[in-house]
Amino acid sequence: MLSEFSLIDRYFARRARTNTQRATLGIGDDCALIAPAAGEILAVSTDMLVEGRHFFPDIDPHALGHKALAVNLSDLAAMGAQPLGFTLAFALPKADEDWLAAFSAGLFELADRFDCELIGGDTTAGPLNLCLTVFGSVRQDDALRRDAAHAGDDIWVSGTPGDARAGLGMMRGEWPVREQDAAPLRRALEYPEPRVALGLALRGVARAALDVSDGLAGDLRHILERSHLAATIDVDALPLSPALARLPRDVQLQCALAGGDDYELCFTAAPARRDAVEAAAQQAGVRVTRIGTMTSRTSPQAAPEIAWRDAGGTPLNLTLQGFDHFHAD
Amino acid sequence: MLSEFSLIDRYFARRARTNTQRATLGIGDDCALIAPAAGEILAVSTDMLVEGRHFFPDIDPHALGHKALAVNLSDLAAMGAQPLGFTLAFALPKADEDWLAAFSAGLFELADRFDCELIGGDTTAGPLNLCLTVFGSVRQDDALRRDAAHAGDDIWVSGTPGDARAGLGMMRGEWPVREQDAAPLRRALEYPEPRVALGLALRGVARAALDVSDGLAGDLRHILERSHLAATIDVDALPLSPALARLPRDVQLQCALAGGDDYELCFTAAPARRDAVEAAAQQAGVRVTRIGTMTSRTSPQAAPEIAWRDAGGTPLNLTLQGFDHFHAD
Repeated sequence: MLSEFSLIDRYFARRARTNTQRATLGIGDDCALIAPAAGEILAVSTDMLVEGRHFFPDIDPHALGHKALAVNLSDLAAMGAQPLGFTLAFALPKADEDWLAAFSAGLFELADRFDCELIGGDTTAGPLNLCLTVFGSVRQDDALRRDAAHAGDDIWVSGTPGDARAGLGMMRGEWPVREQDAAPLRRALEYPEPRVALGLALRGVARAALDVSDGLAGDLRHILERSHLAATIDVDALPLSPALARLPRDVQLQCALAGGDDYELCFTAAPARRDAVEAAAQQAGVRVTRIGTMTSRTSPQAAPEIAWRDAGGTPLNLTLQGFDHFHAD
Repeated sequence: MLSEFSLIDRYFARRARTNTQRATLGIGDDCALIAPAAGEILAVSTDMLVEGRHFFPDIDPHALGHKALAVNLSDLAAMGAQPLGFTLAFALPKADEDWLAAFSAGLFELADRFDCELIGGDTTAGPLNLCLTVFGSVRQDDALRRDAAHAGDDIWVSGTPGDARAGLGMMRGEWPVREQDAAPLRRALEYPEPRVALGLALRGVARAALDVSDGLAGDLRHILERSHLAATIDVDALPLSPALARLPRDVQLQCALAGGDDYELCFTAAPARRDAVEAAAQQAGVRVTRIGTMTSRTSPQAAPEIAWRDAGGTPLNLTLQGFDHFHAD
């Protein structure tokens, strides 16, 4: 078995040193030293992934390396921040070289695509656990905050939310899918694509934004809470992938509205900026869809309610709950 | 049982909001936004603590809250960085309110002492695991790096290293201790004191520095490797606590030189700066002791060797190994 230090050196540190050296001082000292771009500040996010909770024990380690960084890059995307670097802390039951080689390959392929440098970390023995903290750079006034939505704003979502949850249900045996749909749904679950380019393109265009990690309905409520608003959503406008559209309607809605792990962006923008939103999406190469409107609350004490409507404006009675790590979903 | 979100709010987020608000945007958005002081850059360190590896399953959660942050603040101290804030990610088997109340109390007592603000985090269900990432501010030229030692530098250590390892051995039943020594040794293990004030006072005085987390001998080798030097250590000069001094000599040396978890600073400084080092220590209220000298290597290819000597200069033959998380220590 490799010792801790040779393990880090073989799979992580040497690779980190060959990168862009954006960090003034990277792996090998007590701290990494890093600075945001001139006139900008640092955006920081941390996520912990646990076996059996965030991924299956038999997950392809290459996919896990991708996903561990992707969920963190997605948080930067949701702030409109440019990725700079990340730290990686992990606990491993044993130092399995094949596993580490595949994990680090998946991790660095994504890191290289977004020019995001590994600047430090920690490894220990223990039940499998991955904790990444990611750093980005953003002008303070450009940050896409959750508390910046206005009443009357359009509500937009990127991509086709629900595919990751549909893939999870498929793997759990909750519902069968057609053979042709299995691969794209599994890919949505294992290789989520962080919408970094879209987040950057939406600076100065969108008002509030977040990434959908716990389900569109639950995550949208975070914007409603922080912006003191309510919302109306046109359920028929939800963009569904062909694979999800072939599942029963109740599964579609459960996946698209309450499914976690999508990492699409949900954001608001003034109706006057519709063309600008579409241009940003085109620049980023991502589909965006307008699904609703931010509304004022009936009273300041009112709950941050979402009114569900069909395409004809008829109210729908949906009961959905976001993903909560201390409850079953 | 509390849900994830109310749990965070009750024990962490509300408390975070009452702090100094150094972060432009803290808990509750996709990212925290943070900036180093004007003209400075950010020092970043991450540490993961796992039950059974870094602490006993029955550890007092107040002590665990202290230690989880202390080991990270110690990394800032070793860079001479001023603490700014930290993120906290943890996996918990269950949301036990008594445990969380005590853990958060221990954590925030230390955070408040060092004006270090909780700016973000993540919680999930899973085997107990704590991952903190800490942020400090330092002028790039002031950072106490591991690669900055010169041949001829004095080698210094703060405090009385070895007490944490002696306390661990006591609790494991490796050696008996006198009744009067049990409390201070246990305290050294459970409530390590990060040497932040000393690290700040040593800026411009010390050359290289690190914190002793894996044992003085092993950690000093990191300075030797990065600075391309060797060292001579006067074993009789090692500062021992009264409790450690009452244990057998072989236990003293094992604990002081190969024991982990001390979080004292080991640093080098030019002999001309001895008065300045003492003044910095006095300012920080910490004892420092000169224990050796940095030396040139016999050849560039030579190993980063430490020559052990007694007070009379006679060579000693010590075989010590630092703590490695993939081997027994």
